[in-house]
Amino acid sequence: MERVLITGGAGCIGSVLAERLVSRGDRVRVLDNLSSGKSEHLAALADTPGFEFLEGDLLWPNSVKQAVQGVDMVYHLAANPDIKFSPGDPTDKDLQQNTIATHNLLEAMRLAKVKRLAFSSSSAVYGISEKLPVSEADPARPISLYGATKLSCEALIGAFQNLFGMECWIFRFANIVGNRVRAKGRTVIGDFIHKLQDNPAELEILGDGMQAKSYLHVDECVEAMLHAVEHARGGLRIFNLGCADNLSVRRIADLVALSMGLEGVRYRFTGGEGGWPGDVPRFQLDVRAIESTGWRALRNSEQAVTAAIHASLHGNGGVPCRP
Amino acid sequence: MERVLITGGAGCIGSVLAERLVSRGDRVRVLDNLSSGKSEHLAALADTPGFEFLEGDLLWPNSVKQAVQGVDMVYHLAANPDIKFSPGDPTDKDLQQNTIATHNLLEAMRLAKVKRLAFSSSSAVYGISEKLPVSEADPARPISLYGATKLSCEALIGAFQNLFGMECWIFRFANIVGNRVRAKGRTVIGDFIHKLQDNPAELEILGDGMQAKSYLHVDECVEAMLHAVEHARGGLRIFNLGCADNLSVRRIADLVALSMGLEGVRYRFTGGEGGWPGDVPRFQLDVRAIESTGWRALRNSEQAVTAAIHASLHGNGGVPCRP
Repeated sequence: MERVLITGGAGCIGSVLAERLVSRGDRVRVLDNLSSGKSEHLAALADTPGFEFLEGDLLWPNSVKQAVQGVDMVYHLAANPDIKFSPGDPTDKDLQQNTIATHNLLEAMRLAKVKRLAFSSSSAVYGISEKLPVSEADPARPISLYGATKLSCEALIGAFQNLFGMECWIFRFANIVGNRVRAKGRTVIGDFIHKLQDNPAELEILGDGMQAKSYLHVDECVEAMLHAVEHARGGLRIFNLGCADNLSVRRIADLVALSMGLEGVRYRFTGGEGGWPGDVPRFQLDVRAIESTGWRALRNSEQAVTAAIHASLHGNGGVPCRP
Repeated sequence: MERVLITGGAGCIGSVLAERLVSRGDRVRVLDNLSSGKSEHLAALADTPGFEFLEGDLLWPNSVKQAVQGVDMVYHLAANPDIKFSPGDPTDKDLQQNTIATHNLLEAMRLAKVKRLAFSSSSAVYGISEKLPVSEADPARPISLYGATKLSCEALIGAFQNLFGMECWIFRFANIVGNRVRAKGRTVIGDFIHKLQDNPAELEILGDGMQAKSYLHVDECVEAMLHAVEHARGGLRIFNLGCADNLSVRRIADLVALSMGLEGVRYRFTGGEGGWPGDVPRFQLDVRAIESTGWRALRNSEQAVTAAIHASLHGNGGVPCRP
């Protein structure tokens, strides 16, 4: 039995992790500011002994201090979930919600002598790689504020790990999909479903449709983190977390249309390599490091995306993250 | 003629850069909060037409806004100069003075449409490399808060460069030495000179004395930056900046003692691989990238250190940075 804090634990990934940890008998505290997470995601856990929900923010000193009290380990998933930067957005949102929030957490952990931390980083740290698949030892040259601040978090974690004798796991996530992940405008699956529900004859696709990314189902993402935390011990460990292949945006459009029973949908491409400024058009992860721990994704990208489409369309009790 | 802002321009490196740019006819504005820089370093420039000194701080919104007005290019050297983290230090000093200060600068540049930025990063971003010499394409895994926040700055610069169409140069400095760089306690040269002036019979050496690092003379550092900015154009360019070899701490002790005319100094080692928590005991830079632009260090590490020792001991008009 461990006492675990999950930051961002009301989110699409954090809430699945919370259920999983509670089901194996851990005492779980969730800290979430409910800016994108939803308390409904935790409804099933609300009355479970040993489960605790704190509404709060890592940018608030009292929240973070209270959150880390008495825990053995932290899963730090809280972040600005909006990878896209749109003209007019403040340029310090990611700095605040990723970098500074993570520093606040690390400092609170240091003061409370909490030594173990797992962190949800992102494959966005790599930027545009010269070689694919990209491994953990390849250069990280982010091209988005999201990716840049995730890399900042990694670097701060590495420094705290070394200076204060912590044990830390950094997971560079592929695109994580699942039944609670069907955002309008924020994920390609949610985007396509909503657009085709509005107009089944034509689908606008951002970019040239050739963007290709790695996808991982949220259930597998959670299992992989737990597996690595148990089996890859000591110091600072960094893992790409995904499956070995990738999937094109155009193919996802085909899969969504197929699942909705639509034929002859016209695709209209907005053009350009990336979907938005800071988008990495193509990535594929070298997952040999995480596989060397004994974990391997059961679904490939297409299978993970297909499962997420079906869950989004037909429901399975999951509450959508950002409907 | 360019209009140039130098942040940290009253510092040991920035003030040499300011002199060099003024001497070639540029209009130079210096922003410095004088926390470690000294206005004496700029005394010779004070009445020069086209030279302007602003006392201010990148953490103050008005300072940074005023500083970037009307300039073509920024050399961003302002930083927390204290690489060592000592128990009891706040853990957010580097975050504030490196990461957040750099974000403030980038945002001010964006708003003022200033598109060109050269940044003094550090070889501390690499942490402990599996292979030496370390090249720009090798993984950056900092182990100090200083290194972590320098990497954060790099990542933010990369994101701004991509999102807002900037032209940026990132220089990962070796240890920079010179006539104004003779800090007590902050650089190994100043440390040894002061200790031997106090007690010529015995010298305490942090670590085991086997630490080996690359050194570059400040004059060469400035020339290299100017050379790269002129000859390596377009997008984001990252360069290790140093000479190809390195030099042990024990050898520096020998050189200082020799220059002071001391014989038979007993060395007392505090022990351990690194000199302090977060110290990278051994590094050596792969400098082929900067050399491919046509620049090459004239002095090796020993020659650079020897010149700095002589300047510190015998003076040459330079004002010490942190006496």
